[in-house]
Amino acid sequence: MKKIYLDYAATTPVDKRVQKAMMPYFGSLPASRQEKFGNTMSLHSFGQEAKLALENSRAVLADLINAKPNEIIFTSSATESNNTALKGIAFASARRSPALLAGRLGEGGHIIISPIEHPCIMESSKWLKSNGFEITKIPVDKYGMVNPEDVRKAITDKTILVSVIHASNEIGTIEPIEEIGKICREEKIYFHTDASQSFGKIPIDVKKMNIDLLTASSHKIYGPKGAGLLYIREGIKLAPLLHGGGQENGLRSSTSNVSAIVGFAKAAEICQKEMRKPDKSRRHFDGSSTILPKTNLGGEQKRQEKLRDYLIKNLLKIKGSYLNGPPPARQSHSAQRLANNVNARFDFIEGEALIIQLDMRGIACSTGSACSSASLEPSHVLLAIGLRPEQAHGSLRISLGRQTTKKDIDYLLKVLPKIIKQLRDISPYGKK
Amino acid sequence: MKKIYLDYAATTPVDKRVQKAMMPYFGSLPASRQEKFGNTMSLHSFGQEAKLALENSRAVLADLINAKPNEIIFTSSATESNNTALKGIAFASARRSPALLAGRLGEGGHIIISPIEHPCIMESSKWLKSNGFEITKIPVDKYGMVNPEDVRKAITDKTILVSVIHASNEIGTIEPIEEIGKICREEKIYFHTDASQSFGKIPIDVKKMNIDLLTASSHKIYGPKGAGLLYIREGIKLAPLLHGGGQENGLRSSTSNVSAIVGFAKAAEICQKEMRKPDKSRRHFDGSSTILPKTNLGGEQKRQEKLRDYLIKNLLKIKGSYLNGPPPARQSHSAQRLANNVNARFDFIEGEALIIQLDMRGIACSTGSACSSASLEPSHVLLAIGLRPEQAHGSLRISLGRQTTKKDIDYLLKVLPKIIKQLRDISPYGKK
Repeated sequence: MKKIYLDYAATTPVDKRVQKAMMPYFGSLPASRQEKFGNTMSLHSFGQEAKLALENSRAVLADLINAKPNEIIFTSSATESNNTALKGIAFASARRSPALLAGRLGEGGHIIISPIEHPCIMESSKWLKSNGFEITKIPVDKYGMVNPEDVRKAITDKTILVSVIHASNEIGTIEPIEEIGKICREEKIYFHTDASQSFGKIPIDVKKMNIDLLTASSHKIYGPKGAGLLYIREGIKLAPLLHGGGQENGLRSSTSNVSAIVGFAKAAEICQKEMRKPDKSRRHFDGSSTILPKTNLGGEQKRQEKLRDYLIKNLLKIKGSYLNGPPPARQSHSAQRLANNVNARFDFIEGEALIIQLDMRGIACSTGSACSSASLEPSHVLLAIGLRPEQAHGSLRISLGRQTTKKDIDYLLKVLPKIIKQLRDISPYGKK
Repeated sequence: MKKIYLDYAATTPVDKRVQKAMMPYFGSLPASRQEKFGNTMSLHSFGQEAKLALENSRAVLADLINAKPNEIIFTSSATESNNTALKGIAFASARRSPALLAGRLGEGGHIIISPIEHPCIMESSKWLKSNGFEITKIPVDKYGMVNPEDVRKAITDKTILVSVIHASNEIGTIEPIEEIGKICREEKIYFHTDASQSFGKIPIDVKKMNIDLLTASSHKIYGPKGAGLLYIREGIKLAPLLHGGGQENGLRSSTSNVSAIVGFAKAAEICQKEMRKPDKSRRHFDGSSTILPKTNLGGEQKRQEKLRDYLIKNLLKIKGSYLNGPPPARQSHSAQRLANNVNARFDFIEGEALIIQLDMRGIACSTGSACSSASLEPSHVLLAIGLRPEQAHGSLRISLGRQTTKKDIDYLLKVLPKIIKQLRDISPYGKK
């Protein structure tokens, strides 16, 4: 059976070039022929080879977001980076006030988040709330957009952190990060953004975009699972989540997962190259000039954007179908959408039934975040943009990737209307 | 130059068989030809293939320590497992008492550890202490052995957890875990052991050994970095460190690092096979019969033990040399030593100078824990067994592995005395 993967927002395969870059760091037996598998904390050459690879990877990734290498720490995942950002700032702030962490609401400081964050931000916030911190969720509009002025209004004299996702993992909305960051900078509040879905797809400049903390993930950009990063602007104090040997500048103890980190850097390098217009391909890794303005996306992103809009246009020909999230690129609107994200809903259809029917025909899609798919609750993101629970349950996320072709999309467009018709035929509420 | 790796306690190369087992889970482009790279939380076949591999790995690893699959959670490392065990039990206990976490010593409950724990246990304990928990370090004897009765004496009505390392990463001492566990069971206190250095080397039976929580690591047993496990006996409540999508039964959110976990299971399987005597090799994975008593080590462990004792015997011929930790196997003594660990000190010698000189001749050794090697402090383990700081600084850890041959040891034994003589010649305190 033909197999079509359209769930690149959940995870991606590891690019062959990335796999090749990783292999030497697994080492080999006998050790004498491969010496890159060492522990970065070891003083001998095996350790120093690994350390060198670690620091080279750090430099490559820092450069891609216009940060300094010492502003990047490696973690095991975006979930860990997000947990570290929120709890790390919270604990560091609590440390300054001994009455905190006493379980009394409000005394632990105030954190502002959007209502469309990934579950790891939502759940970390809930946990912090149960430990004495106050959490405010600002609203979003029907496209999932945060209004930066709502952030300003929510800030109190107890606010310690604002965290807003860069681009929604479910509906692809690209948030006005630069403007939110500007307000936070003016108000002297730390600003964190979860860039798991945008890193490697949209140019990011932490300085220009006023970002204090940023999360990125390897396995969303054709790197291996098991590596994430957290950018922490120089001078910001953070309490570590993992205590131990003092790796990552004391902020994340644990033996460095060198092969995964090397793979992460290689994957990001490839994405950066593909993000640029073909004629700029020679300007590789020469500093700030590699970062293009958001409006100037080229290469692979442009290709996916075209495929996305072709898919949206044809999806919406299905009777009783609606797009969730921002409109396609051709319709002028301030709400922008990730080039690889489509999220649609269909009257009288359960998203989960759709996933299973598509899977039986070799097509892999999702109802929303992979991390929420085991839950029976309707998507908090879709509810936040104003959908009713039954509308949220009827939604389908299709996320494109580097290997997605027009042929794949045409196959989906051939299969999907038939499945929808079949499902409606057997639905007690369905219209024939 | 000949390269000899003798730092297997710091990290190991990834066995070729393990690498081969991991590869399908990296996936490949186009996706249609490889479908094991999925996110385990996805409902489609890519996700379900990954989920199946995850659960198979869990079953394999659980079986090796006589646990149930639902008693194993995967983490990114032993450091994370140890942090989760200590903080998870601490926070779960604090949750039961709303006055806790108030920064007042003693109110957060009481935890007992040994003084020879890995830095991640030491530092997690310190952090818990600064957050209202009380920490007691029980003593060890000159071989690094804990006296189980000292554990019993240290238990108070506030004690919530005892954590004692199974086998020392620095001096190889194997602790009387079963007896300590028995006392904890009698006193109704949770018992955690960090088995990072023993897992895959010494048979472990969590039931027989009265273990409530156990940490193990992949990269110490020829598996990849980036995977660890925490055994949590059924019914024990633990607060998660990482909040999010609810993976690992809600105890460790984050996209599962499937390739690393598959590699971890494969590596453990190979170790288990090699641990047994050759004539038992057909009794592979058939339940409890795979677990042999400690006295019945065979195969690879026996081989390393012989090499170890050959090395110790010849090392001690060097003038002014002393063994740290338990004596070799032939000398009958209750203190047992890991088959792959040698730790020695030499009068008038700085361990670090020794490491560098050995490295220049292609031999990789360590002064102690890789996670402490960046620190200028003398080893807390060596101080705990009664060494003076200058003695601790003069120590060398040599850890053997699957690829270590007698030829390697002979080369070390040829080179080391010359280096020691040279270093003593230039030392102001050295004797010629």
